[in-house]
Amino acid sequence: MHRDPLPIHEIIRIVGKENTLTAPEELYCYGYDASKLRSSPDVVVFPGSVNEVAELIKLANRRRFPVFPRGAGSGMVGAAVPWNGGMVMVLTRLNRILEIDSDNMLAVSEPGVITGEFQQAVLRHGLFYPPDPASLQFCTLGGNVAMCAGGPRAVKYGVTRDYVLGLEAVLPTGSVVTTGTRTMKGVVGYDLTRLLVGSEGTLGIFTKIILRLVPAPEGVRTLMAVFPNLDGAAKTVSAIIKQRLVPSTLEIMDQATIKVVENYLQIGLPTQAEAILLIEVDGRACLLDGDVKKIGEICGQCGASQVEIAHTEAERERLWQARRAVSPALGQIKPGKINEDVTVPRTEIPALIRAIQQLAEKYDLTIVCFGHAGDGNIHTNIMLDRNNEDELKRSELAVEELFRTVLDLGGTLSGEHGIGITKSPFLQWEIGAEGFDAMWRIKAALDPLNILNPGKMFVPNRAFFN
Amino acid sequence: MHRDPLPIHEIIRIVGKENTLTAPEELYCYGYDASKLRSSPDVVVFPGSVNEVAELIKLANRRRFPVFPRGAGSGMVGAAVPWNGGMVMVLTRLNRILEIDSDNMLAVSEPGVITGEFQQAVLRHGLFYPPDPASLQFCTLGGNVAMCAGGPRAVKYGVTRDYVLGLEAVLPTGSVVTTGTRTMKGVVGYDLTRLLVGSEGTLGIFTKIILRLVPAPEGVRTLMAVFPNLDGAAKTVSAIIKQRLVPSTLEIMDQATIKVVENYLQIGLPTQAEAILLIEVDGRACLLDGDVKKIGEICGQCGASQVEIAHTEAERERLWQARRAVSPALGQIKPGKINEDVTVPRTEIPALIRAIQQLAEKYDLTIVCFGHAGDGNIHTNIMLDRNNEDELKRSELAVEELFRTVLDLGGTLSGEHGIGITKSPFLQWEIGAEGFDAMWRIKAALDPLNILNPGKMFVPNRAFFN
Repeated sequence: MHRDPLPIHEIIRIVGKENTLTAPEELYCYGYDASKLRSSPDVVVFPGSVNEVAELIKLANRRRFPVFPRGAGSGMVGAAVPWNGGMVMVLTRLNRILEIDSDNMLAVSEPGVITGEFQQAVLRHGLFYPPDPASLQFCTLGGNVAMCAGGPRAVKYGVTRDYVLGLEAVLPTGSVVTTGTRTMKGVVGYDLTRLLVGSEGTLGIFTKIILRLVPAPEGVRTLMAVFPNLDGAAKTVSAIIKQRLVPSTLEIMDQATIKVVENYLQIGLPTQAEAILLIEVDGRACLLDGDVKKIGEICGQCGASQVEIAHTEAERERLWQARRAVSPALGQIKPGKINEDVTVPRTEIPALIRAIQQLAEKYDLTIVCFGHAGDGNIHTNIMLDRNNEDELKRSELAVEELFRTVLDLGGTLSGEHGIGITKSPFLQWEIGAEGFDAMWRIKAALDPLNILNPGKMFVPNRAFFN
Repeated sequence: MHRDPLPIHEIIRIVGKENTLTAPEELYCYGYDASKLRSSPDVVVFPGSVNEVAELIKLANRRRFPVFPRGAGSGMVGAAVPWNGGMVMVLTRLNRILEIDSDNMLAVSEPGVITGEFQQAVLRHGLFYPPDPASLQFCTLGGNVAMCAGGPRAVKYGVTRDYVLGLEAVLPTGSVVTTGTRTMKGVVGYDLTRLLVGSEGTLGIFTKIILRLVPAPEGVRTLMAVFPNLDGAAKTVSAIIKQRLVPSTLEIMDQATIKVVENYLQIGLPTQAEAILLIEVDGRACLLDGDVKKIGEICGQCGASQVEIAHTEAERERLWQARRAVSPALGQIKPGKINEDVTVPRTEIPALIRAIQQLAEKYDLTIVCFGHAGDGNIHTNIMLDRNNEDELKRSELAVEELFRTVLDLGGTLSGEHGIGITKSPFLQWEIGAEGFDAMWRIKAALDPLNILNPGKMFVPNRAFFN
């Protein structure tokens, strides 16, 4: 696309010199995200208002340079990584919670607010914002909305899209729209709000976000159950749901994960066990003890060899210790990993994990599975050394087979990470040529010059894949 | 658009003679919906498969005639009414529930299934499909998805969009797409599912619908409270929410409604009262009695002169009797009504109702307000005789002022009915020129020949407004 130098003076006239970075060492810092893909932009800007965002986008359309919006850069698929130069637009200066409307149970926030800080702020009003991506202590609401972030609590509470009531957004041609409502109901025109949620920065840049809130749960109870065999754990998940109990969290660790974590923590985890479930219930206080007891009984009936219920906050922390240690523990066994957040209907979890075990054997790889059993979202980590070409090749073949299996099981290639760059070669596998065509028509209609976050989602971006 | 006769022989070749209507008296029956707008099509077809739908749409693109999809025709805004001839496509032959997946708490249905029958079917699995439009005994799921139907339970459970996980749909050019997932999480590409929900038949025709289900509530409790003044009722709504109790239903009737219903039923309703609230809580059995008692106390503290709690199903029916009688009672006072489903943040309900009372006075009209106080969705009925030109004119002026007021209060022009024909002159008032432009670009990108349901939403369709 662009080859001409960017109009730096015009950019500075809009956002000010103090909000414009051009030194190579500064550009370098805004050239990557959690995918570890990397490419330096020509300029980084920090707009301070919706008007500045709109002016920058209009300038980009006039001068035809790409704009790559980003928040904290915690995304896993390269959606915030620039490509072929251009402008990175960082939204973190727009970091105010504008309003917490307790009576109407909603809040209006700017995109740069940290998700965890937002949750704390609304909690002080007895309100709860459930989406809880693992990065919540540093990721931003704008990024969460752009990627439709999920988290462990989705099994009970849904994901980001289920909480976004409306947006103020700058569209790819620089016009400013207000979408949605401040009410649960609203059916005036197309649902631009939900079209923009999860659009990965390709259809709009959010400058205000209206979020629905729910009453804060009065309490939470935590239980850990150890299963000698995987099917027992899977049966437990189904049996809990069959009892119409919906835990707020229903996490699973497979045997490979248990071994890795035990090797790291040395806390006596049962490495013979094929699975551990970590289950939480939350909600009205008077239900919690009964529900957690009933779930413990179900675990036992389904073959758990050990069930522990936390009675204190310290005990709860101890039960979470192993789950929280997964990521650092993985870092110890191999320098790299390919982390796929595939999702299948929860009844297909054992089929998925068995298929993954076979892939590990077939391709001689260490594959570690853990994640959100309640909603079928299993984080599948292929551990590797990217400098080992043979291992990398085998891993890529395993990923392709994994994706075929997931689609055969009625699942989706991404539950919460998105497409970005890393999954763009596989987009059509799931949505087909017709779905791709419809999505691309929408992109082209709203962004005729392909200004906003080009090279993502639609285009298998070979620049990043050697 | 089209002036040539429709290619009836080709149409019959696709759907069969027995599924094609061309006699004027038959066409007449498919020329209207609950808006009472009317216009006869050239042909009515009843396709029996996704392939037939796709073939018909491709034919319509080749021969350039408009297609007007519909279910039961229970919509309130004319979205299913044909215009300038063309083809009405009735989806009621696609009326099978294809799957109820109890373990994964979802169901797959064809669009022609009656909403109420679907609810009964899933209830037999202990599952619950909450959206409850007033027409649920005869409206179809396809129509509900096309219009994003709501209902009284939205205050706790949300609306149709909150339950649609995925779709099989025929797009306006005849291609068939599968959107969304069978899982709570799924972020692969743009959210075509939610773009299609509420698109009023202008962007796609649904042939399969994947619906999320929730555990059926174990019970329900019902309470009626009478308020000498409106502010007490409004304060009650806020106070209940402040206690973080979320009723499953929170209905209001204003004084005009109470008088009309009492005149109709003669059951001793307090016609001096400015408002009646009808409140239900549902959910886990052990919470219900405590919650309804607490809500009763809140009503008393906020100035209710009378609080009744139903202890039996018969008592519950009696409390609902007045609410259910509203529509037939309205039919007695005037031959016609303009029913607007405006929605405001729930804290603005008293301001809205007072403004409506002033409009009634200013324009010498009977305006009756009732509806869903919990989510701010107030059905505003201007009672009139459409043959009385002066009254009609005054009503139209009142509607315009009502809409301005609603937008000033941070509300939306339609909570659950949609735009269709009747609200199309006002679409831009809410979404602005920029929002309109974005929506129209999407429509034009997906439907370049404007085949699917033209003359709705975007175009103030003067043919119906003399």
